[in-house]
Amino acid sequence: MIFNHNKWMNYAILLAKRSKGITGKNPPVGCVIVKNDILLSSGRTSSSGRPHAEENAINSVKDKNNLLGSTMYVTLEPCAHENSTGMSCAKLIAASGICEIFISYIDPDPRTAGKGVTILKKSNIKVYQSYLQDDCLDIYDGFFSRILNKKPFVSLKIACSLDGKIALNNNQSKWITNDLSRNYVHLIRSQNDAIMTTSSTIISDNPEMNCRLDGLENRSPTKVILDRYLKVTHDYKIYNSSPNTEIFTYSLLEIDKNISKNKKIKNIKIEKGLSNKDYFNTIFYDLAIRGINNLLIEAGSKINTILLSLGIIDKLLIFRSGKIIGNEGIPMIDNLNINSMNSIENYNLSYLRTFDDDVLEIRKLNK
Amino acid sequence: MIFNHNKWMNYAILLAKRSKGITGKNPPVGCVIVKNDILLSSGRTSSSGRPHAEENAINSVKDKNNLLGSTMYVTLEPCAHENSTGMSCAKLIAASGICEIFISYIDPDPRTAGKGVTILKKSNIKVYQSYLQDDCLDIYDGFFSRILNKKPFVSLKIACSLDGKIALNNNQSKWITNDLSRNYVHLIRSQNDAIMTTSSTIISDNPEMNCRLDGLENRSPTKVILDRYLKVTHDYKIYNSSPNTEIFTYSLLEIDKNISKNKKIKNIKIEKGLSNKDYFNTIFYDLAIRGINNLLIEAGSKINTILLSLGIIDKLLIFRSGKIIGNEGIPMIDNLNINSMNSIENYNLSYLRTFDDDVLEIRKLNK
Repeated sequence: MIFNHNKWMNYAILLAKRSKGITGKNPPVGCVIVKNDILLSSGRTSSSGRPHAEENAINSVKDKNNLLGSTMYVTLEPCAHENSTGMSCAKLIAASGICEIFISYIDPDPRTAGKGVTILKKSNIKVYQSYLQDDCLDIYDGFFSRILNKKPFVSLKIACSLDGKIALNNNQSKWITNDLSRNYVHLIRSQNDAIMTTSSTIISDNPEMNCRLDGLENRSPTKVILDRYLKVTHDYKIYNSSPNTEIFTYSLLEIDKNISKNKKIKNIKIEKGLSNKDYFNTIFYDLAIRGINNLLIEAGSKINTILLSLGIIDKLLIFRSGKIIGNEGIPMIDNLNINSMNSIENYNLSYLRTFDDDVLEIRKLNK
Repeated sequence: MIFNHNKWMNYAILLAKRSKGITGKNPPVGCVIVKNDILLSSGRTSSSGRPHAEENAINSVKDKNNLLGSTMYVTLEPCAHENSTGMSCAKLIAASGICEIFISYIDPDPRTAGKGVTILKKSNIKVYQSYLQDDCLDIYDGFFSRILNKKPFVSLKIACSLDGKIALNNNQSKWITNDLSRNYVHLIRSQNDAIMTTSSTIISDNPEMNCRLDGLENRSPTKVILDRYLKVTHDYKIYNSSPNTEIFTYSLLEIDKNISKNKKIKNIKIEKGLSNKDYFNTIFYDLAIRGINNLLIEAGSKINTILLSLGIIDKLLIFRSGKIIGNEGIPMIDNLNINSMNSIENYNLSYLRTFDDDVLEIRKLNK
């Protein structure tokens, strides 16, 4: 019999992708159980993280005898840390009768980090590690960044003209890109845990910064506002957009003078006099502690330039139209003081597609 | 019997494309002759224009009796104007026994312009016009522009960074794009009749402006140099690159003080004090008169900006890498003094591909 291990793991990957952006601080995982190359069941991480994908997959097999001699495909190492009932996924699998398991990534979370595999092997389950690992990278770069680097995976979204401008010099930017592109931005928002913007973007554009795709409204991410002097009063749309997601406002001021009754708004104080580097490191560390894996930035030229020059941007999402604004427009990236071609950052192409006349390039920092 | 008219016309289109850039002032044409849906012969316009595609296709049928009752597919209307032996393609076809013909575009050349079709119809040949016409547009935009607008079809090539810069502010630009992109530029050169640059680009970069792809060297286009004050001495590479193509130098000066023995170099005097619009219209009209259908521009920010603001650029070929230079770099397009999103030129996407990490966008002016 020919076993289609690739097919089943790819199915697990698809399931994991569906959960991206809605599993809270937990990684999105896809899990498939197969016997004699026939699907027994599947599962993915539930909203906000529990139950895990493996538990969902095992629980949806009605006759547990069927699990004897079956194979599991899972995109991340089953956890070794126990839930409220004293059970870990690794123990659950060990007790299930599953006899072999294909795992894509080993979980970097120190509570598991190989301990899951050890439990499985001790129960004589055949373990295949690193299976189709490269295909899972996009799913876990956020979770890995938070666990290993103590910062979210940072994506910068830019909508620009053919010559790289984000607005006319009178700040007009409606609309450089088309409505298909702008809709896709909402889908990207839904796949991130938080979306960050600045007081100047809010004051100039008054954006809602939510996901407004039919049926995906409740996937709107947490909002992060950089507002050193609390200039953004609570009547701006970002404080009132639906659904009522968490909002983190980072400022230099102790007291929120616009204090809201909404408990979901947290005002987080940042030390004065920090360098740009320390300022952003502090904020990104704080976001990691708060469980933000994937952070999307939608702001202006100034912050784009600072973050880029600090090497903090992991991923660029550039939506580009066929319009030409001219060099007096606002640039996507401002001055970087580069004197040699050798000192230039390079972002490698990872995805390219069109939206009618617009082009989307997704690029990742070449580390 | 099912006749695959699309298939045969597409074959004719492929043949025409192979001739693009090497047929002189003549349009590149592809021609296929088919009987009972089986290929009898094919032909394309010969180098520098004669014999025509139809003549080549008919001549390569050994037993002319086979032509009786056959079908011809041709990308442009057969000519009604006679060659040195008193024969036109329309007459040749009329006398051949071919009984039906599929034509994509009607030839706008006033010597033909429907007269070819009239000759064919008078000989009781069934004529299908405008067949797969849209698929032929890229082949004929140059020829049509020269005949109908008395100017070449103008393509502007730009190699830029992800943020739309063509060089660092110290003019360094080696290499923003990769070698695959740069090779493809040579292929594009081979498909144009002439390549235009300026004295400042030559003095700063000393380019050869030829096609250096193995086997295609002899497809290097005519060179056009905008050199108002004859600053470019004849020791620059552009005057010495191989092969020895024609060079047109447009200047304000009467006498070529650097006069060369090379008869292929023509110094063309332009009137002083012309506006940018009249200056370029004069040059483009002169190039049209000299038989240039497709003109490729490879120059700097200044001329890009002037031509773009004059609405003279028909097509943009933008090679973009993943490098970020920053806003102090040299922009692909300089200031355009645009105050409203409504007054912005839009270039529609017509082709998109990657060269490893670089992206090529081909866009056409939305007229």
